Amino acid sequence: MIQLEHVLPADIEKTSFSIIASELAEKGISLPEELAPIIMRVIHTTADFEYAKTLKFSPNVVEIIKKAIKSGADIVTDTNMALAGINKKSLEKFGGQAHCFMADEEVAKKAKELNQTRATVSMKKASQIEKSVIFAIGNAPTALVELCSLMEIGFRPVAVIGVPVGFVNVVAAKEMIMASGVPYIVNEGRKGGSTVAAAICNAILYSLK
Amino acid sequence: MIQLEHVLPADIEKTSFSIIASELAEKGISLPEELAPIIMRVIHTTADFEYAKTLKFSPNVVEIIKKAIKSGADIVTDTNMALAGINKKSLEKFGGQAHCFMADEEVAKKAKELNQTRATVSMKKASQIEKSVIFAIGNAPTALVELCSLMEIGFRPVAVIGVPVGFVNVVAAKEMIMASGVPYIVNEGRKGGSTVAAAICNAILYSLK
Repeated sequence: MIQLEHVLPADIEKTSFSIIASELAEKGISLPEELAPIIMRVIHTTADFEYAKTLKFSPNVVEIIKKAIKSGADIVTDTNMALAGINKKSLEKFGGQAHCFMADEEVAKKAKELNQTRATVSMKKASQIEKSVIFAIGNAPTALVELCSLMEIGFRPVAVIGVPVGFVNVVAAKEMIMASGVPYIVNEGRKGGSTVAAAICNAILYSLK
Repeated sequence: MIQLEHVLPADIEKTSFSIIASELAEKGISLPEELAPIIMRVIHTTADFEYAKTLKFSPNVVEIIKKAIKSGADIVTDTNMALAGINKKSLEKFGGQAHCFMADEEVAKKAKELNQTRATVSMKKASQIEKSVIFAIGNAPTALVELCSLMEIGFRPVAVIGVPVGFVNVVAAKEMIMASGVPYIVNEGRKGGSTVAAAICNAILYSLK
């Protein structure tokens, strides 16, 4: 007989976070107070405690992102999945919008013409938004590489959440972001994904409630 | 100086799959031919080779799902992220549709009234679809538990892709599905997620091309 724990719907998330906290303690991992809500939400989203070690934050990045969101900054992501996962209502309360240009016909056409990825072309398009922008990249390392190129010619995003997943240039693209001088939240190594990108955005949004 | 590999956009996925194949071989893991495209796409989506060991398939489940999709079956998922990730054009070619009822106002209202999760109420609603339905559950173990209850009173889904992620009743709910008699693809343990659910659906859809 398989036993289920009786947890009320409203308590599932709270119970999950308690389990994560106690298992982190068992593993002897203590998280900086400012970063704990983000790291714990990523573990909640992945059930993967590796993130406690691999998520890297540039100095004051969380404060920088919070301040920007409070001032109405937008979020641009490289996947419709991350866009679906980001709590857009929370963002809109502060005047910000979330965007993903990957499915735009114009982007697809230009990518084909230039023999670039749609992610690359999406970033060029996003760099034309006339507002402060936070990037949340959960899939395409080419998006991170393009952001580095754009920053070399003067583009200044608020911050880059760089958590693409995969096998081709993922590790190198994350290193490029960390070396670029932009405020960043990056997951070192191959792991990451759209759910991780959305979880990081939401952890920050929920801390602004 | 950080070095990038020069891989053309069209070759990124192929190169990723080659890397995955060679690392699986290095680890001494050989995958059954029918299951390899699914397991490899999940590894591609997560960069997590654990899935080669934890993904479990009931007999002939891939053939059962393929046949159902070819006959126009729908897919129901428990997250808008998985819905965003499933290749709906590929599904629609065969006459099927993908659904997620989590954001329905009616579902939210009923969940509150009944003190159940929205996932539970979504499954009840999905069970009323008058077509063959494949379930792809990437988030809520309560969805799997509800599917088990519905099956006890005669509901017959084509198959259940049961890959919720998390800490409360996730392991038990997956065991319930595997014991229920329904054709299943389940990831044992705590890991899974919306990207995993979508990757499994897409691997099957792409094999039908």
